Amino acid sequence: MAQLTSTEWALARRPVGLPQPADFQKKTVDVPEPAEGQIQVQNSWMSVDPYMRGRMYDRESYVPPFGIGETMTGGAVGRVTASKNSDFQVGDLVQSMNGWRTAWTADPGSAMAMKLPDVGLPESTFLGVVGMPGLTAYAGILRIAELKEGDTVFVSGAAGAVGSTVVQIAKIRNCTVIGSAGGADKCAFVKSLGADHVIDYKEAKGFDGLVAALQKAAPKGIDVYFDNVGGDHLAAAIEVARPMARFAECGMIAQYNDTGTPVGPHNIIQVVGKQLKVQGFIVSFHFDMQPAFVADMAKWIGSGQMKYQETVMEGIDKAPDAFLGLFSGANTGKMLVKLG
Amino acid sequence: MAQLTSTEWALARRPVGLPQPADFQKKTVDVPEPAEGQIQVQNSWMSVDPYMRGRMYDRESYVPPFGIGETMTGGAVGRVTASKNSDFQVGDLVQSMNGWRTAWTADPGSAMAMKLPDVGLPESTFLGVVGMPGLTAYAGILRIAELKEGDTVFVSGAAGAVGSTVVQIAKIRNCTVIGSAGGADKCAFVKSLGADHVIDYKEAKGFDGLVAALQKAAPKGIDVYFDNVGGDHLAAAIEVARPMARFAECGMIAQYNDTGTPVGPHNIIQVVGKQLKVQGFIVSFHFDMQPAFVADMAKWIGSGQMKYQETVMEGIDKAPDAFLGLFSGANTGKMLVKLG
Repeated sequence: MAQLTSTEWALARRPVGLPQPADFQKKTVDVPEPAEGQIQVQNSWMSVDPYMRGRMYDRESYVPPFGIGETMTGGAVGRVTASKNSDFQVGDLVQSMNGWRTAWTADPGSAMAMKLPDVGLPESTFLGVVGMPGLTAYAGILRIAELKEGDTVFVSGAAGAVGSTVVQIAKIRNCTVIGSAGGADKCAFVKSLGADHVIDYKEAKGFDGLVAALQKAAPKGIDVYFDNVGGDHLAAAIEVARPMARFAECGMIAQYNDTGTPVGPHNIIQVVGKQLKVQGFIVSFHFDMQPAFVADMAKWIGSGQMKYQETVMEGIDKAPDAFLGLFSGANTGKMLVKLG
Repeated sequence: MAQLTSTEWALARRPVGLPQPADFQKKTVDVPEPAEGQIQVQNSWMSVDPYMRGRMYDRESYVPPFGIGETMTGGAVGRVTASKNSDFQVGDLVQSMNGWRTAWTADPGSAMAMKLPDVGLPESTFLGVVGMPGLTAYAGILRIAELKEGDTVFVSGAAGAVGSTVVQIAKIRNCTVIGSAGGADKCAFVKSLGADHVIDYKEAKGFDGLVAALQKAAPKGIDVYFDNVGGDHLAAAIEVARPMARFAECGMIAQYNDTGTPVGPHNIIQVVGKQLKVQGFIVSFHFDMQPAFVADMAKWIGSGQMKYQETVMEGIDKAPDAFLGLFSGANTGKMLVKLG
């Protein structure tokens, strides 16, 4: 049998501000036969996600930084090609954190590998709507934001993998939903998901415009804000929040590439008077919701209540472009790289 | 019987920035005999509190603004001098929101009047440690911040009426407590309450100094922040927060007199990665805790575990000075005006 090789991407240097293609470095490595307990997997899909930008800084965070010259990691799905682990058979569909590469051999635990059910859902959905972004949406809107029927909900980044799922869960729960996205195409996509109002943040042009658009869409204010963006969006949400509103702080992509001192919400004092709850969360602390999440998603996708969109780039060579595209708004829905 | 008169304070005009003596206007009014259902009360103490600054702005908030020329309101305790309400007897000790005046006649409901138990506690304590500031501390640290045994707790404004009570509750619950206050006298007071570390914020001089002092006091970071101050204190607390830390946002006195655009915490993005919960609250939404609060306070004061300090100004004429003193740090513990 010919030696299996893997094409992989490492960080060549730490990006300053917006990452550049030259920050990445491609390499080819041999993929060994599995030792006792190990599995060998060929990836068919890999995920690129905004949180990866945080791992490119050399600083402590909830996950350690990527090492320079070391293959990066991230969500991937693939099929087992060889196994010396009795829990895995050749051909099994496997999700792991061994993305940014085409193939790998490892102990399943070290790769956070788990077998996926072959239930007829496309493989790529396990990296999106039925994967981490979907669970992020589910845990954030239901547990952190404590969504109630009839709430008025504002979702920023509503055309993204997480945001588009939040919009639909809130509609399934009979809420009024306002989504924000950048540009006519994305706004049309958000509208197609059932959002009652869509704000084009590129037209709103900053805090004042966002507040005006939100006041028009929600004259009585908002009960919930699901934040993917931070910055002016967060300040505008504080401004139009009703008393006791709940904010699920999922991400602040507006700030990820800041090199200067970022600006906090100038109206944060309203957190006191309006008794707001502003709470950050990370999906990996909510894996206990996984069974309920998968059951709900299977039901909602089956009934047509849950739609999803993917932006796919073809081939491992495109992985850095796919990642960089997240920051220029190149994706609608989940951004993926097809490997197999 | 001679006509009872009341000396009262109204807002003469809306303060811009730091309030000035000329923003207040004194008047004398007749206090009528009670009509059916009403009571007549002579106040013995009145309270001045930072939140009153918010009511001097002409804007919507959780309480309506003070009217120009109308007697202001606030916490007061006094004795019933005449009653046409069967629930109140002459001589009863009464707490009400009819402060900023020496006497009044009203329906108890309209004045939020309630009878106080004559349990041997000094009357003034019902405006402080056993009153609204005490309940604010109690609800904020126990319910909003979800205090747990062994937590490392940071309290700003720790020499104030609320903060000094928070420090002691946290010590009673076996926590490590860091308090911040301005100046050597106040810091000594906070230390005397049992705080493990005290930071003089006037010496720390802003964000960097506060972070350095906090890192020294709590090398592993803080689990809870009880915020009375906002501004640099809030940003410093975010910076040293441990994952899953809880912030009880009680007030932001550093911003109350801002005339320019205030500055939000530049590091708010850490709310996501550290999964912080930043939650505002208002004491009046936590009156359900009143019975447990009074029972705990009586026990703790009786056992000497709960100390309190008051700064007293004598006579209704001094009421504006007492209020202005809150912003120059003139008080240690609860600021009160003695009327009777």
